[in-house]
Amino acid sequence: MATLTSGKYPVQDPISSRAHSMRALIKHHAGPHLAFVPDRSRPIPGPRDVLIRVKKAGICGTDRHIWEWDAWAAGRIPVGIVTGHEFVGVIEEVGSAVTKYAPGLRVSAEGHVTAWTDYNSRTGNAHIASDTKIIGIDRDGCFADYVVVPEDNVWPVHPTIPDRIAAVLDPLGNAVHTVMAAGVSARSVLITGTGIIGLMAVTVAKAAGAGRIFATDIDPRRRELARRLGAVEAFDPRDDAWIREVRSACRGEGADVLLEMSGAEPALSQGLSALRNGGTAALLGLFRGPITFDINSLVIFKGCSVLGINGRKMFETWYQMEELLLSGRLELDDIITHEFDLQDFVKAHETMISGEGIKVVLNIGD
Amino acid sequence: MATLTSGKYPVQDPISSRAHSMRALIKHHAGPHLAFVPDRSRPIPGPRDVLIRVKKAGICGTDRHIWEWDAWAAGRIPVGIVTGHEFVGVIEEVGSAVTKYAPGLRVSAEGHVTAWTDYNSRTGNAHIASDTKIIGIDRDGCFADYVVVPEDNVWPVHPTIPDRIAAVLDPLGNAVHTVMAAGVSARSVLITGTGIIGLMAVTVAKAAGAGRIFATDIDPRRRELARRLGAVEAFDPRDDAWIREVRSACRGEGADVLLEMSGAEPALSQGLSALRNGGTAALLGLFRGPITFDINSLVIFKGCSVLGINGRKMFETWYQMEELLLSGRLELDDIITHEFDLQDFVKAHETMISGEGIKVVLNIGD
Amino acid sequence: MATLTSGKYPVQDPISSRAHSMRALIKHHAGPHLAFVPDRSRPIPGPRDVLIRVKKAGICGTDRHIWEWDAWAAGRIPVGIVTGHEFVGVIEEVGSAVTKYAPGLRVSAEGHVTAWTDYNSRTGNAHIASDTKIIGIDRDGCFADYVVVPEDNVWPVHPTIPDRIAAVLDPLGNAVHTVMAAGVSARSVLITGTGIIGLMAVTVAKAAGAGRIFATDIDPRRRELARRLGAVEAFDPRDDAWIREVRSACRGEGADVLLEMSGAEPALSQGLSALRNGGTAALLGLFRGPITFDINSLVIFKGCSVLGINGRKMFETWYQMEELLLSGRLELDDIITHEFDLQDFVKAHETMISGEGIKVVLNIGD
Amino acid sequence: MATLTSGKYPVQDPISSRAHSMRALIKHHAGPHLAFVPDRSRPIPGPRDVLIRVKKAGICGTDRHIWEWDAWAAGRIPVGIVTGHEFVGVIEEVGSAVTKYAPGLRVSAEGHVTAWTDYNSRTGNAHIASDTKIIGIDRDGCFADYVVVPEDNVWPVHPTIPDRIAAVLDPLGNAVHTVMAAGVSARSVLITGTGIIGLMAVTVAKAAGAGRIFATDIDPRRRELARRLGAVEAFDPRDDAWIREVRSACRGEGADVLLEMSGAEPALSQGLSALRNGGTAALLGLFRGPITFDINSLVIFKGCSVLGINGRKMFETWYQMEELLLSGRLELDDIITHEFDLQDFVKAHETMISGEGIKVVLNIGD
Repeated sequence: MATLTSGKYPVQDPISSRAHSMRALIKHHAGPHLAFVPDRSRPIPGPRDVLIRVKKAGICGTDRHIWEWDAWAAGRIPVGIVTGHEFVGVIEEVGSAVTKYAPGLRVSAEGHVTAWTDYNSRTGNAHIASDTKIIGIDRDGCFADYVVVPEDNVWPVHPTIPDRIAAVLDPLGNAVHTVMAAGVSARSVLITGTGIIGLMAVTVAKAAGAGRIFATDIDPRRRELARRLGAVEAFDPRDDAWIREVRSACRGEGADVLLEMSGAEPALSQGLSALRNGGTAALLGLFRGPITFDINSLVIFKGCSVLGINGRKMFETWYQMEELLLSGRLELDDIITHEFDLQDFVKAHETMISGEGIKVVLNIGD
Repeated sequence: MATLTSGKYPVQDPISSRAHSMRALIKHHAGPHLAFVPDRSRPIPGPRDVLIRVKKAGICGTDRHIWEWDAWAAGRIPVGIVTGHEFVGVIEEVGSAVTKYAPGLRVSAEGHVTAWTDYNSRTGNAHIASDTKIIGIDRDGCFADYVVVPEDNVWPVHPTIPDRIAAVLDPLGNAVHTVMAAGVSARSVLITGTGIIGLMAVTVAKAAGAGRIFATDIDPRRRELARRLGAVEAFDPRDDAWIREVRSACRGEGADVLLEMSGAEPALSQGLSALRNGGTAALLGLFRGPITFDINSLVIFKGCSVLGINGRKMFETWYQMEELLLSGRLELDDIITHEFDLQDFVKAHETMISGEGIKVVLNIGD
Repeated sequence: MATLTSGKYPVQDPISSRAHSMRALIKHHAGPHLAFVPDRSRPIPGPRDVLIRVKKAGICGTDRHIWEWDAWAAGRIPVGIVTGHEFVGVIEEVGSAVTKYAPGLRVSAEGHVTAWTDYNSRTGNAHIASDTKIIGIDRDGCFADYVVVPEDNVWPVHPTIPDRIAAVLDPLGNAVHTVMAAGVSARSVLITGTGIIGLMAVTVAKAAGAGRIFATDIDPRRRELARRLGAVEAFDPRDDAWIREVRSACRGEGADVLLEMSGAEPALSQGLSALRNGGTAALLGLFRGPITFDINSLVIFKGCSVLGINGRKMFETWYQMEELLLSGRLELDDIITHEFDLQDFVKAHETMISGEGIKVVLNIGD
Repeated sequence: MATLTSGKYPVQDPISSRAHSMRALIKHHAGPHLAFVPDRSRPIPGPRDVLIRVKKAGICGTDRHIWEWDAWAAGRIPVGIVTGHEFVGVIEEVGSAVTKYAPGLRVSAEGHVTAWTDYNSRTGNAHIASDTKIIGIDRDGCFADYVVVPEDNVWPVHPTIPDRIAAVLDPLGNAVHTVMAAGVSARSVLITGTGIIGLMAVTVAKAAGAGRIFATDIDPRRRELARRLGAVEAFDPRDDAWIREVRSACRGEGADVLLEMSGAEPALSQGLSALRNGGTAALLGLFRGPITFDINSLVIFKGCSVLGINGRKMFETWYQMEELLLSGRLELDDIITHEFDLQDFVKAHETMISGEGIKVVLNIGD
């Protein structure tokens, strides 16, 4: 029985070739698109870093912002970096002071890099450290043959988890973090917004023990997929009769939990309206700017808890995600819709941006 | 969609006949067995009580103690009472000061009766009130055509939940309380002992989001059933190699959660050995007497949390149980194995006591 | 040692006179002020109610709204009711089905009245029940010789707590609820706004184990009082340099906890800016209307928790408050600044409204 | 105002002398006492270690076991090691891959050393890592001029905390961890056993917001000191009438929280008897061996939570401790009773062992 195995982690031999260059997708100028470069210098790990040979990498919604070079990207992304932050690979080489891992181990990695000196990083919450830099955003990322990360960021991948899934543990971790922070076990759950992470949240919430799951999305295909993944109903939020329906289904009081995944201002107010007094709302979706809302009625009088969610807990979320994957109850096949080879990165990005694909994965190495 | 309905609770007409007597099973003497009496006086509800016409009632392990008249029963049960504490029925009549419910409502009830004046009953934990009296144990119970309970103990049964299941919400609630107190969502879970409530705990833990579930029991049929209900493995605890297997499957560290359902002294030590450092153990099984164990190694050095579990939270557990039932993920068909008519109560008790049946239900009225 | 006593609750004889009328302050018309009436009919308790002879009653900020007849009051308060909701008194008479208390007991009461049938009232959170009516706001209150409340709302007052303090357990409970919901023990705490409840929150937070307490208020006298009650510093929020000072004092990261007591829109943004990543904000102050704020930066990226606070937990907060009072560490003498006899109610209200007084108490009976 | 300062951490110049030997107390043979050696080789830090010049070090109860060479010590302590694990000092030298700290910083350190690869060490609970080695117990400790620890174990000491206190943050952290794990804010607290850490727990519990504190100890001087530090009463546990007194003082139900600090088997049963239903017990005291107790009555029926406490949370406890120290409310002057120079280590150990002293500190360097 696979899930019962002690999880002996297989070790692959490092690839002997010691080429000093590699293929990479880089943000080559302060404008749209990425450039493929065949001969980027292979990064050299520092004393506490590991060099990872990338096998597969996921394309994130953030990569869309970088591709399109919107205001956020223009304000944050240094021109010249290798992009990409979701991946699986194999450790190729370790720095001189590395003690935890050895070459050959199949790994993913947490992309949030910190010096581990502030309050949050010393108390199990490094995901919200005050000095966080993110791979593929603030420093070189994983859309390349090799990527360097600190050894403290490495996550050994359980042998029963396939590469295709191991490539997207980062966004799956966002969903797990949101679901687990809110606490869905034996509770009714409303998910507003079923983009990539919202859809992941449907299957994660169900696997994590949610009672009935309700979802909203303006896209009928996403709603249909949400139902297939476990939502008892998925509503078009543009007709707000759904709020009454959810409240009515939940003793006339409202859902126990709200997971806000859309970043749409009306969704927050609607979602909080559909939440029962004393309910918990976990917010992952980012809003376009400052929002206006009736905090008296929607939060204070209701006695609700509103939780800001950022990244994934380092590393509580990763352990929870592994356990959910080992349970065999996560359904990701309908969410990871496309795979492309690295050189087809334009098609890959376009497939994600057009909405034709949901989660799109780049195949980079073996 | 049933689970989406607003849960309109159907009202049945009270039965017009106003007979003043009823059938009942009573503890007729200070010794084994129960007696059937055809003409027990029908109880009269006090100002804040409701009179419930019983439809179905479950036979509990506690009823076995009462039937066999062991030392515990001899020390606690008043001779002459009607036994039974798990049931579903319909409100027939309400006391003069009752405000919450009206005749005709289908209900179950929490059997723990309190005056609602102490710390726990005023803070959401009436299940551990200091003055608790239990129906069918300290006062008349539900193995009869009618039972009286305070209106504060009533639980309206959701229309989508069948009588057969509504009859056993009390023990199912024990399982839900244990599972939810420990917190199983996205965690590996070990259940020591798969008697009635232990088996319920397997399906409840799975529905409530547990990762991998491991179980132990000395009875091979129970182990087989535990696997069918969702355990990835069920072990015979008499060979303690299983401890190493569980630890090995859980990163070499041990399971995240222990649910102790056996009341067997070795199970506690074994279970805590199989738990990881910092894990949580919830104890429902009652031990034969004082136990001896190495609390330094098994609790203090490990930094574990040990939770005593009694009854069901009044009424947090009941809401959680309803949501789990509405999710459609609880599998109780293999656990509720037999139904008998009230007059066949001897056969019913014997079926439960022999182990031939697991949960046995008495059919009492319509 | 008083605090060690078993707390034998003294019983006072009910006053024999059976007058059927009483003095009361009523909202006599849809406009400002209250009217004193000498001969209001004495209320008659229902079967589950108690009639309480009022000794002292506090004047709340809400009573100011009712006095001034602002938009909120005009929209909610039924003309003709007796106002007032904070008090201490003695049970004079109990309804026919009352089981918990007897005449002669000195009591205060929770003013939130519910039918105890919804999710929150059945799970220890009746303070946010969906059907709440409040005495002195939605039904007759305590600015009168007698007031009726359901027995479930009664709180027996510990014999060591003087009437002067027992009269203001309602607002003190607001402060305790906010402080305890946020969790201040061994944490740095920022309190924005030191009105009546904000000042109470300073002494409550200190008694409840807060580390350093920082406060803000535009009124220099309130700031001075905040310091006297335990704040290490109190800032004028109009110069936002204080945010940097608080962050700097707290490892450069920010305070662990924010208690928002002002209802001022800038205070929320400032307070969240001064909070560390992953900190907890508890919001009690009500805002003038919908607010606009940068929820991305202030809540989501920071991974903060924002808790809406309403009333007092029924009855967890009351137990916590009693324990804090018995510890002898709450300093309320500088907060309860004035007492007036009932007939001087105009002066009493004006003293509170002008800001000359902080907490003003009416002496009504013996 | 000291507590408001941004906590600029002063840097002391490293002492230029590069002597290769140092003074140390070592466990020189498999038997009682320690030996002073004047010329132990100065330890050399590894790439991720720091070398700390020791200023002051505390003598722990564990050091008594090592001094007396009891069964536990004989089974665990490697002959030849330098003992001692509580200290304050100044970083003298850092390893080649150290990134967090520089020479000259005044620091204490967490003595639990782990590889940071297991579940607990990656989720904020490294204090219960499965591979923990402890300085002064499993490897060289701090009763010497220099000690080496991994940089991840370093705790920079806030400038306002004097050396005398900084030397005992390890045992103070035990008390803080126990108190904070149990959660004492606005709760009544019973502390069984007022040895060094039990006494610290009295002042910590009071500072952390406990309501009334009750203590037990067989030593009348310790009881007197417990009262001086904030206990409302301290009882001789040999007459168990005290259990009734505590229960009576706490509504007839019992204390909210038990902190077991004695390791005496009767104390556990007595303490749990004096705890209310649903209360929390945190166990720090180690028992002589397996214990026998009535877990049904004392834990399961009562619905209590029992928490094993080991070490200090790495590093949540250290932050909480700092905040409590900055609050100015911890009273440690009566607990740190003696200081001796290193060469007077025999007298120092004897003063602690005889009970004449409570916490005894060795002065080692400047």
